Amino acid sequence: MAKPVRVGIVGCGTVGTGVAQILLTKAEEIKKKTGVKPVLSKIATRDWNKKRFFKVPESLRTTDWREVVQNSDIVVELIGGIDTAKEVVETALKMGKPVVTANKHLLAEFGYEIAKLARENDTAILFEGAVGGGIPLVKVLKETLCSNEVGEIQGILNGTTNYILTKMEKGNLSFKKALLQAQEKGYAESDPTFDIEGIDAAHKIAILAMLAFGGKVDFSQVFVEGITHINVLDIKLGMEMGYKLKLLAIAKKRNNGEVEIRVHPTFIPLSNPLSHVDGVFNGILFKSDYLGQLKLQGAGAGAYPTATAVVQDIIQLAVGLSRCGKVCDITPLGWANHQLKIAKDFYSRYYLRLEVKDKPGVLYKIAQILASKDISIAGVLQQEWILKFLSSHLEVVPLIILTHKAYESKIKAAVEEIEKLPFVESKPVLIRVEEEKY
Amino acid sequence: MAKPVRVGIVGCGTVGTGVAQILLTKAEEIKKKTGVKPVLSKIATRDWNKKRFFKVPESLRTTDWREVVQNSDIVVELIGGIDTAKEVVETALKMGKPVVTANKHLLAEFGYEIAKLARENDTAILFEGAVGGGIPLVKVLKETLCSNEVGEIQGILNGTTNYILTKMEKGNLSFKKALLQAQEKGYAESDPTFDIEGIDAAHKIAILAMLAFGGKVDFSQVFVEGITHINVLDIKLGMEMGYKLKLLAIAKKRNNGEVEIRVHPTFIPLSNPLSHVDGVFNGILFKSDYLGQLKLQGAGAGAYPTATAVVQDIIQLAVGLSRCGKVCDITPLGWANHQLKIAKDFYSRYYLRLEVKDKPGVLYKIAQILASKDISIAGVLQQEWILKFLSSHLEVVPLIILTHKAYESKIKAAVEEIEKLPFVESKPVLIRVEEEKY
Repeated sequence: MAKPVRVGIVGCGTVGTGVAQILLTKAEEIKKKTGVKPVLSKIATRDWNKKRFFKVPESLRTTDWREVVQNSDIVVELIGGIDTAKEVVETALKMGKPVVTANKHLLAEFGYEIAKLARENDTAILFEGAVGGGIPLVKVLKETLCSNEVGEIQGILNGTTNYILTKMEKGNLSFKKALLQAQEKGYAESDPTFDIEGIDAAHKIAILAMLAFGGKVDFSQVFVEGITHINVLDIKLGMEMGYKLKLLAIAKKRNNGEVEIRVHPTFIPLSNPLSHVDGVFNGILFKSDYLGQLKLQGAGAGAYPTATAVVQDIIQLAVGLSRCGKVCDITPLGWANHQLKIAKDFYSRYYLRLEVKDKPGVLYKIAQILASKDISIAGVLQQEWILKFLSSHLEVVPLIILTHKAYESKIKAAVEEIEKLPFVESKPVLIRVEEEKY
Repeated sequence: MAKPVRVGIVGCGTVGTGVAQILLTKAEEIKKKTGVKPVLSKIATRDWNKKRFFKVPESLRTTDWREVVQNSDIVVELIGGIDTAKEVVETALKMGKPVVTANKHLLAEFGYEIAKLARENDTAILFEGAVGGGIPLVKVLKETLCSNEVGEIQGILNGTTNYILTKMEKGNLSFKKALLQAQEKGYAESDPTFDIEGIDAAHKIAILAMLAFGGKVDFSQVFVEGITHINVLDIKLGMEMGYKLKLLAIAKKRNNGEVEIRVHPTFIPLSNPLSHVDGVFNGILFKSDYLGQLKLQGAGAGAYPTATAVVQDIIQLAVGLSRCGKVCDITPLGWANHQLKIAKDFYSRYYLRLEVKDKPGVLYKIAQILASKDISIAGVLQQEWILKFLSSHLEVVPLIILTHKAYESKIKAAVEEIEKLPFVESKPVLIRVEEEKY
């Protein structure tokens, strides 16, 4: 029978601990299913005194990651961040050892170089756990959709912000209160910047875009807007119009070969299957030429779901190593040797909420500015009940404008002009609307 | 560079034609992504005069399936049914050639034997296209959930019946009218028996149960009930109570090691993510120990989605053959050498609709029968508007009873007694309710 495959883990945080637990408790089960037994050979972390939800046997512990790399057939990097993580991954790959990682930050910034290094050393880097926790998004893109041309990806890729938006919508909470609840529940970190500013979701969509469109992404060109400015009023107004507000990550191929990669709060119609993905769950929608729409939904974070994804990759590598003596994976990221051209501007419908003084000529002046930027108005909304939300100063009237499709650059320029009008009382709220029918 | 891998197809119906088209038009793209080029070497069908949506080059056509098997590295069986299909698959496997099939009927009845034959000949049988069209359910079960214990699978696995139920619900149509529309749209065949009687869904859930629980399924023991007796009134009443009616395929592991495998119309709460899967779409929910809930949704049938799934399998085999000279797949179906013990009875909540004469003592008598079978009543519903649906004979009163959890055998026995009561005017309608919170 096949020799066991030695798996070494660098990093024993929540995901590392979860992977260790699954490997130690399920190895026989995995062997029964695959014929191959992945054996945890060593696990490194700096501080073994920290409390963990699973006790790693003393004999497997080390504080030296080089010892792990040296004594493993497969190296699992789970320390996160860039510096040491990058060194671990590069050291293993240069030794021809395949690597599994869940490090989205590292991949979003250096994924292409790392994949290149893996190819040059005839080995592989797998990273299902980096995007969407336990949901097999990377596998679907690499394997299921390999023969398809992916036109668009829409994803709710950050559980923290989805939890906050769901709490705001269903509990009528302010952003700050919903964030506090997320922190109390352990869904948000004490410094939630990466989540609430959209950066975490942007890392993930950048990785998926590299896979889907086959090229390197300059992460600094990804458009990112978080949810810190979202008011519960806008969520309620959206629902009134049949929309749910989600922090949507979008990667879209244009006819001219450019790609849009962007993360921002977005109104989506209830007919969009992602509108039902609430709470900490993640969801993703792939649109491709032959398969059409494929949607996946599940636990986008957490120790065990992410560990399941990491173990999926370990098993795939272990089966290849054991049966053929080499990795047998569809090479990721290196699908093309070019840089993706990221569109500088994009095209969307917009929701614009203004607070204006109630006097003649207001709408006329605003409409004039929009028209001067080629932005056409699809609808104007002004309802009694909105006033109740803004009871502090009733001489100010809320005005909601829905536009037809327009360029982001033009609506931004229009908003800048509108903001300067003397009767506009506060900073206009601008939210993109993904209107497409499903 | 790697040699091209020769792919031979047996069967040129809609899926076969789709696979041929994808291979002929996307081979270069696949090579760019994977380094391996799958080349269509030959395709067999009995009648080349039939009109097809894609023209297969004359040089690739044959009417002799043995010629295809002889001249291919990978054999794709897409003729369907049992007889010839089984011969094709067995012939190829005995020659050590890996096989891709989308034949759910063959796998549900002989999957275990075929997988055994593949193992004995050190090759593989892959069948993503057999279940859920383009949705990678088999891949998720075999690979993503390999380290997890799957506790339950719930699926909407038949697009035809889902289309019919959606039409009944949203268009207020009778079953017969909705079926006619499905046939006009090409979603139902002229003989729709396999779909509307639940047999197609049962084939699929049997295959998934084999994968999830690692054993052989005696298909004759699978509980199957179709949708032909469903009345639009029950769909509406369900919605009134917060339920959607779906033809649900369920595979569930019990604490005693037995498994339930069943297909029947089922009321599911709106909090169940499958309640949003409407029209011809398929959806599936996996519940497992580490990953928790994972839901997939997409095109469950159709030439291109199913062809995408078939090509996914072809690519996986081609990469293994090209890189390692052998298949590199996680052996399916052969995960255990035992027969799954299928539970004879199961446990569910029930919706019972009766038409009774409006006179004293009716509910008392019915409650007495239910109590005698240990079935406890959770609620009784009787509303004005129901009467409008049954305006033909107003002296008859509809009575809806929701039960707590009870054994199927006991509720069936109770219904048999209730049906015989002199004041019960028509055959009672019994629908299972999957109540679990999500």
